Amino acid sequence: MKEIPLAKVFHLIEPGPVVLLTTARKGHANMMTMSWHMMMEFVPPLIACVVSPANYSYKALRTTKECVIAIPGIDLASKVVDIGNCSGPDVNKFEVFGLTAVRAKKVAAPLVAECIANLECKVVDTRMANKYALFVLEVVKAWTDPKRKERRTFHANGDGTFVVDGRTLDLKKKMVKWAEFL
Amino acid sequence: MKEIPLAKVFHLIEPGPVVLLTTARKGHANMMTMSWHMMMEFVPPLIACVVSPANYSYKALRTTKECVIAIPGIDLASKVVDIGNCSGPDVNKFEVFGLTAVRAKKVAAPLVAECIANLECKVVDTRMANKYALFVLEVVKAWTDPKRKERRTFHANGDGTFVVDGRTLDLKKKMVKWAEFL
Repeated sequence: MKEIPLAKVFHLIEPGPVVLLTTARKGHANMMTMSWHMMMEFVPPLIACVVSPANYSYKALRTTKECVIAIPGIDLASKVVDIGNCSGPDVNKFEVFGLTAVRAKKVAAPLVAECIANLECKVVDTRMANKYALFVLEVVKAWTDPKRKERRTFHANGDGTFVVDGRTLDLKKKMVKWAEFL
Repeated sequence: MKEIPLAKVFHLIEPGPVVLLTTARKGHANMMTMSWHMMMEFVPPLIACVVSPANYSYKALRTTKECVIAIPGIDLASKVVDIGNCSGPDVNKFEVFGLTAVRAKKVAAPLVAECIANLECKVVDTRMANKYALFVLEVVKAWTDPKRKERRTFHANGDGTFVVDGRTLDLKKKMVKWAEFL
């Protein structure tokens, strides 16, 4: 995997793809499917996400204060839905779903080798965790797999249907204001 | 426009489309383009969004504590980008961009008639507004235009390119856990 500059991370999250969130606690690596997340800051890249206490990952996130956000391509859609439908303590999801856990550089949570990109994150603010299950994450290292051909992501409608990335519309010429980030 | 039950609002925001945010302050209606937002709760529907103090809308949001999130279809992409590239005090954006402001029921901010859906919102939490420019919104009324044919939304890559909704993948059969929300 190839490193991505942190200043480019927002390009991956801003479009709103379904992601996987991995954690590691007491030697047990786990992952969940997540769609409630957004960018909060460009540099250092901050991401907000909602992880319900009903999710096994909630406790891991609160205690270890680390995770990885992995961005799957459309080829993984079926697995990603199944991952969202089973719970962590009962199952080694990496094994069951044939996904490869790769050691991260700065966090104990593993990267997912089969994903388009992986973001190593530290939990930097839990002020809204009790009331809203909202966590503020800082991305401390980012990776992509440049050899991967399928780079289309997908978006959850929340009813079991997903919208696959279609064509790209290039309106760069109109983007004056944000030119510094291109 | 036809009302949408509040329990269905998350289907509109969870996929992560580019949206317009309208506000009204001292008789001046304004709008901005926004991509940093996420669902936080199903019912009542809560949405988190980041509106920078650099945006004219920031002050309106803080003082009036009301806004509308309007979801544009791909047919409005060019206008939506232009709206993001000009600032509120100088210009009546509804007039300049040929968009129709429609009176909302529960907030002073206007609906945008040309959009797929409109969500009337109250700001319910500003605890993270100073540090992160993060606002927590509660959707109090939701509308859609059922006559509208073009229902594809689009997603910002943050570099002046946008991904248009492609095909829909139906994995409903796999969605056991979330069945109650379908």
